[in-house]
This record gives sequence, structure tokens and C-alpha cells, in this order.
Amino acid sequence: MNINLNISSFVNEPNFNSISPDKIYDTLIIGGGPAGLTAAVYCMRKGMKTALVLKKAGGQVAETASIENYPGYSYIDGNDLTLKFREQVMQFGIDYAENVSAERIIQGNVKKTLLDNGSAVSSKSIIIATGKKWKKLNIPGEERLINRGVAYCSICDGPLFAGKKVAVAGGGNSGVQAAIDLAKIASVVYLIQHRDRLKADEILVNSLKKFSNVEYLLGHEIREIHGEKEVEKITVENLSGNSSFEIPLNGVFVEIGMIPNTGFLNDVLKLNAFNEIPVDHLCRTEAAGVFAAGDVTDVRYKQIIVAAGEGAKAALSAYDYINFEFV
Amino acid sequence: MNINLNISSFVNEPNFNSISPDKIYDTLIIGGGPAGLTAAVYCMRKGMKTALVLKKAGGQVAETASIENYPGYSYIDGNDLTLKFREQVMQFGIDYAENVSAERIIQGNVKKTLLDNGSAVSSKSIIIATGKKWKKLNIPGEERLINRGVAYCSICDGPLFAGKKVAVAGGGNSGVQAAIDLAKIASVVYLIQHRDRLKADEILVNSLKKFSNVEYLLGHEIREIHGEKEVEKITVENLSGNSSFEIPLNGVFVEIGMIPNTGFLNDVLKLNAFNEIPVDHLCRTEAAGVFAAGDVTDVRYKQIIVAAGEGAKAALSAYDYINFEFV
Repeated sequence: MNINLNISSFVNEPNFNSISPDKIYDTLIIGGGPAGLTAAVYCMRKGMKTALVLKKAGGQVAETASIENYPGYSYIDGNDLTLKFREQVMQFGIDYAENVSAERIIQGNVKKTLLDNGSAVSSKSIIIATGKKWKKLNIPGEERLINRGVAYCSICDGPLFAGKKVAVAGGGNSGVQAAIDLAKIASVVYLIQHRDRLKADEILVNSLKKFSNVEYLLGHEIREIHGEKEVEKITVENLSGNSSFEIPLNGVFVEIGMIPNTGFLNDVLKLNAFNEIPVDHLCRTEAAGVFAAGDVTDVRYKQIIVAAGEGAKAALSAYDYINFEFV
Repeated sequence: MNINLNISSFVNEPNFNSISPDKIYDTLIIGGGPAGLTAAVYCMRKGMKTALVLKKAGGQVAETASIENYPGYSYIDGNDLTLKFREQVMQFGIDYAENVSAERIIQGNVKKTLLDNGSAVSSKSIIIATGKKWKKLNIPGEERLINRGVAYCSICDGPLFAGKKVAVAGGGNSGVQAAIDLAKIASVVYLIQHRDRLKADEILVNSLKKFSNVEYLLGHEIREIHGEKEVEKITVENLSGNSSFEIPLNGVFVEIGMIPNTGFLNDVLKLNAFNEIPVDHLCRTEAAGVFAAGDVTDVRYKQIIVAAGEGAKAALSAYDYINFEFV
């Protein structure tokens, strides 16, 4: 479920063209989050022949309500920031395909990227900015009850739980941010974290503490999600006491982080232990002509401003590659 | 000369405190450009005890007229963006000192930074974001005629040359951007570049070509700047012909790049051949607890968005250092 469909689509924009199967692009950008869209602006300004394939403009940003740490905006919501990033790309007549994922890259001097819509893109360089997707708990009931009470995006799905009881699994920044969002909407929020402390930013933890309808279950883990047609209750284990108990509720938000979208890269790049793409300080990967930026890389800090900065670097590295290394 | 004094000063802000000589800060940020100010936002949000010393808020951004490649703003001028960065820091009660430079860092578990106002700051970590300063031509007449026709910041000083003849030395992005700015103001702009082509972004070169009052002297170099009290003419050499000639004019803008402000670091860090600070992809330097971000580093691409992203990374790296490495 996504409340942002109204702004996230590039389709029907007069300024956008289809990707040509016959062209050899200077660069193909895969991904439409802050890293990919910033890379697009930089490539187009450099006059590079640029193709952009993306699933959805904005990426995770489009799923974020309040952003207070993007320099230049003391406060902006994710929809608005996505719109602004998008407008900036739209100034240029970029070749693009939307609702599309890469399936495989065939390395070579000119690289060929196969897409899941059956087409292929040829390019001298590639910028991978495919981001991450939600991590799952992998417990009984989770998969079966997705979109029937089990959710991952508090911004998208939170409003469905007005006045209801929900649990948030995870005490990092995403967990605490989700709990804050949900505390404004739900009647009770159970924040469940296997560690004995919250590891989110102090400023977020302090914000959360202002809500009286949040119950903290530190040192606890959800073991099972129950429900016939919808979520009805969860089984929670107390890790220190080895005891478990049930909580009746309506929703479970799984906020334990993300995994990188790197499944299509097996042939091309060695990934790190977290399946992220190792990059150097100029966003170069181990493969000549392949660059990566944003949450998909081993840059530890998953922040919008970091992804945007890395997107610019990847674009300029690709530009230098085309001009000084590509033969 | 600086037309931005109205917004660049932190002084007299109720939300700002003096730096205490008795505190041991978690981090000291040196520099007030996009890297330093972004680092400040991230450190404060993490609840770190943070000190900020800077010469001038905004750094080079405050000297830039039109910015079209900062994601989130299709167009913004440097003054406005500086103001927005600054507001975002101002939300927090940060300890700061302005109009101040670092003179020396004494390494150690707790580091001591000596400032040119005679005071010292103790901190567990340091984030260096001191940026760069204008590079000089080092030719006869340049030093003597600074502010008397020789200028480095077209945004700051361009308006003084309305209807006059000026030369711009440099055909990279800063040279071409300066020529664009000046073509709107001056009667004639001579763009002088030692290479036989402009190496600026295509989009900038195309913008410049719209002006009919720009004369291109590619493969040329300025050899001397002449004038009694003010700039009167320059001697230009044609590099291919080994001939030289004079051009009468009123101003010379030197736009050949910048050199990093790293003179105070001799004791602490090894610098690269350009006197930049080598960093890894997490903005760590070779010295434990010392981080660097922005134009002062060996990240090749000197862009506002890159500097801001690196500032966030340096802050989060410093936070991790304090929590997991500092003893």
C-alpha cells in the first residue's frame, strides 16, 4: 500500500522519453531514490547520454513522513522532497523506464542490462542505486498476514490503525520513528526490542517518551503472529526470563531494517557480508565502469543527504570514467 | 568584499553559546560550509556535546549566486541556501566561535585544538571541514592589485564592474560560471584558458554561448596584470604561437580553483599531493578520532551536495568512534 502514488510516477511526463534498445548510453542509472535521481541530475548536466530505470520515484523517501535532517529544509515531508527531486530531473529530457527492475548485468566494455520487462539497455557505464527493501522477522504468521495487519511502512499504513493497538518490532531509528508516527494514531503502541536499550538517536527517543500510550518491551522478541483473516494477537518472549506471553492487538509493524536490492548482481560484483556493494570514496566498485551509490552500498550511514551526495559522486566518477578510461 | 554579511553571522543569536575552555566536547567541528553545518546538525541530533568553530557561515556557498544542482532546489541562490543551512543548526543550542580559525591540533586521546583567537578547545573527536581558498595565478601585478581590479569571487565583486571590461582566467566550471555571471554585468568578458577547450559542464558552456559579449581566448595565458592604482591592462600569451599581446580592461577574475585550508594540520595528518586530507568512504582519516568532510578532503568532486553528504557521514563516524572506539 502506498499513499504517494499521485506524485511518484514519471509516466505521461512530456519531457521523458522511452529507453531506446538501439542506443549505447553513456550511463544507465538503476534506481529512483535520492541517489539515483541526484545522479540523473548530475549526468544530464554533464551532457551524458543517460538512461534511468526505476521502480518508483523517491524510493524510501516517498515513504517517510517528516524529514528534519536534510540540509536546506528544517522540515519537509517525504512526498514533497520526492516531488522536488523529481522536478529537478524532469527539467531534462531523460530516457527512462518506470516500474522496472534490473534482472542481470552482462559485463563487458559496453555493458548490457536485462530488465524484468523483457527489454535490455546498453551502456558504457552503470550507476547502481537500487536501495534496500524491508527486512522480515521470518516468524510464523508474518508472511501470511502481510497487508492484513502486518506492515513495514508506518507512514503508508499507519493511518489504517487509528484507535487500534499495534506493536512495533525494532528499537533503532526506524523502529522508534515508526513508534512516534503510530503513537499519534493508535490507541496503544508496544515497542518491542530484543536489546535491553533503544539504539535510536537520543532526539528520537526523547520525542517518543512524550507519548503516554507507548509501552516498552525491551529484552523481548515477537515469536509468532496470530490471526485468522487479520492480525489478532502476538506471542512475545521475555529473553531474560525465558517466559512468553500473548498480547491481543490489531497490527504489527516490522521495523528491523532493510536488505539491499543486489540480487541481480551475482555475476558482476562481490558483495559484503550484508549483501551490500563495497565502494571506495569515489563510489567506484571493483568492476570497471560500474559505480554504486546510496543505501545499496557499504557506506554505513543510510541517510537521504548521504545518498544524494553519493549519487552526485557516482555520476561524476562515471563521467570521468567515460572521458578518461573507457576505450 | 562580501555582500553577504547580513546573513552569514551567527553572532548575537540567542540560541548559541560560547565554547567553554573547561568542557571536553564529544566533537569539535572546524568549518562552517555545507560539510561543517551538516555535521553540526547530525552531531546535535545524536545528542553529542558539540563545538563548532568557523570563519564564516556558508563558506563558498555564500559566495555563489545561482545553484541549480543542489537536490531539493531546482534553483536557489547561495545566500538563501546558507540561510537555510544556518537555521537548521540554530535550532540546537550549539557552542560556537565565529571569525576564528584553527592554528594547531595537539593529538591525543582527548585532542586539543588551538585557535587563532588565543583559546583552545578540548574534544574526543574532531571533524575537519575547513574547505578551500582561492588559488592565485602568481603573476606580476596580481597580489598588488587585489581588490583594485583583481578579484576571485565573481558573485561578491562582479557588480563593481557594471559596464566595464573584465577578463576571467580559467575555463573549468568556476571560470565559466564566473563568465556567465559577469557577462550579464560587464560590457565585455575575455575568457582566458590555457587549454584549447573549456572543461566546464556542457550545460554551463551552452549557457555561456548565449552571450554575445564574451570573447574566448583558448590556448592563452595571462602573464602580467598592469595598472597604477587600479587594473588597466593585461599581458596575454598565445601558447601555440608563442606570441603575446595586451588587452586594456578594468578587472581580472582569477577562477582557476582553490587550495585546501590544511596548513594547521602538519602535526596530525599526512596530506596528498594537493594538500587535501585523504579519507575513506566513511570520512575517516588516518588519525584515530579525526574525521574530515567536504572540499578539504581528497574526494575529487567539489559540490555542495557532496560536501553535505560527507558532513553527515563524518558526524556519524565520529558518533560511532565516541561510542565504540574511544577509551
